[in-house]
Amino acid sequence: MKVTILGCYAATPRTLTHPTSQVLEIKNHLFLIDCGEGTQVQLRKQKVRFSKINHIFISHLHGDHFFGLPGLVATFRLLGRVNPLHIYGPKGIKEAVTLLLKLGDSWTNYPLHFHELSSQAPEVVFEDKKVTVTTIPLDHRVYTNGFLFREKVGSRKLEAQAVEAHGIDSCYFQNIKDGKDAPNKAGEIIPNAQLSSDPKPTKSYAFCSDTAYFPKIIAQIKEVTVLYHESTFLESESDLATKTKHSTASQAAKIAESAGVKSLILGHYSTRYDGLQPFKEEAEVYFKPVLLADDGREFEF
Amino acid sequence: MKVTILGCYAATPRTLTHPTSQVLEIKNHLFLIDCGEGTQVQLRKQKVRFSKINHIFISHLHGDHFFGLPGLVATFRLLGRVNPLHIYGPKGIKEAVTLLLKLGDSWTNYPLHFHELSSQAPEVVFEDKKVTVTTIPLDHRVYTNGFLFREKVGSRKLEAQAVEAHGIDSCYFQNIKDGKDAPNKAGEIIPNAQLSSDPKPTKSYAFCSDTAYFPKIIAQIKEVTVLYHESTFLESESDLATKTKHSTASQAAKIAESAGVKSLILGHYSTRYDGLQPFKEEAEVYFKPVLLADDGREFEF
Repeated sequence: MKVTILGCYAATPRTLTHPTSQVLEIKNHLFLIDCGEGTQVQLRKQKVRFSKINHIFISHLHGDHFFGLPGLVATFRLLGRVNPLHIYGPKGIKEAVTLLLKLGDSWTNYPLHFHELSSQAPEVVFEDKKVTVTTIPLDHRVYTNGFLFREKVGSRKLEAQAVEAHGIDSCYFQNIKDGKDAPNKAGEIIPNAQLSSDPKPTKSYAFCSDTAYFPKIIAQIKEVTVLYHESTFLESESDLATKTKHSTASQAAKIAESAGVKSLILGHYSTRYDGLQPFKEEAEVYFKPVLLADDGREFEF
Repeated sequence: MKVTILGCYAATPRTLTHPTSQVLEIKNHLFLIDCGEGTQVQLRKQKVRFSKINHIFISHLHGDHFFGLPGLVATFRLLGRVNPLHIYGPKGIKEAVTLLLKLGDSWTNYPLHFHELSSQAPEVVFEDKKVTVTTIPLDHRVYTNGFLFREKVGSRKLEAQAVEAHGIDSCYFQNIKDGKDAPNKAGEIIPNAQLSSDPKPTKSYAFCSDTAYFPKIIAQIKEVTVLYHESTFLESESDLATKTKHSTASQAAKIAESAGVKSLILGHYSTRYDGLQPFKEEAEVYFKPVLLADDGREFEF
């Protein structure tokens, strides 16, 4: 599982800081999360293969999270895209993108599917054999969802030596991977636990931005491998955080601690601060390890 | 008069090439022309003072000419803008910008005026004491206007020595600047030509992009100081130019030659070419001087 940060700063794009966008690589998917202005250039800089992005998840319709989307949709056409593109985001996103294309008498020559979201409760928005993506309703000034990406539990691991020692016929191998017991040649039933071991632990990634401090999400993100939580402000600006429905680094860390996550990535920093180290220091009072997102940074888990 | 090229490449924004946007400084105005994605970052890079931009002219509603506009309008609010902002562009531009702001529950805390254009004939869209801006209807796949920025003829220049030699009272000075004759102390009428000289020649800038080869514009841009004319292609791709309603460098130069302009700036290059020099060489067969726009380049006239 790999996260590539394309942009992790709040508000306006600047020369060296980019608004929110990131790519999550998980189980052969390349999921794009949020798409601030300039995202397509950041994708090029990070050498992400555009054509492999088939699903785009938009948290909310503030410009710094989606003003790069119409341009990306248009660029996909110019690049000769053929594969369907799925866009998940708040109600209204379809009207916005299609209006902008229509005004330019443009179109897509690939199937474009919008999945508009309006539920106040978590809902599964994508699922295949290996991954589920579930919304995480957040608390921001406009309707906002985080997204929980979770690998599905895989098959049990066949223990080759044990299987051979017991003389199990290969026709039972799939059954064993599925957790079933199997007979040996003498017809004795060998318990599954003797023939297989637990599947690889699954990984999970929770993207939570933008949001006020919102403990309601803790139950849903319990023990995820990685939590990306916004920390627009430091505690010194906690009044501003409350007023604008953003979080401080401390608050992000408290959520991480209560949810017992494995790692916390901070991001969506206000550009008022000179450096990022104070975010880490403030968060580490409550939780470790704290990782600092920065534009262009990659994290593997 | 100064032109700053923020972006002059066709189609998608790339790491080192930006879609169309430029700033024209003329008679104390800072006019922004077109606003492709990433324009606000280019404005920062070029150190243009955002707050001095009060008028934005959009040629047409293809993404590479206006997808940076919603973000710029939003950024103006974040920067605490107070002055009114005027946006001139094809019908539909108001709906697009206001929809994107509305979806984010956003607004502007400064007056935002849209001037929607739909005329097929040239029309004056801005005028003050020193400058007029007139649309130049172009021939592209969607409704498109170029813009002709023209300084107004100033007052005649008072010839201080002549005025003194003739003993003209200072109360007649404004009359003389306005082209009138004036009496000397003896009551004799001195012809204006003896008391003043012609005003400074006016400058003019014609922005013509995007457009097919369209000789109909020649009459309107006759003898302008500078013509910026798109040259998406070289003659080797003239079929493609015809098909997509763009121009070749040769065609741009033929327009410049027929209109007797002083200088031609080429731009809106397709990114298929390795360098810009062939555009210049191709155009110089028909017209000189040819200047090559490039992102970040400034031209003073």
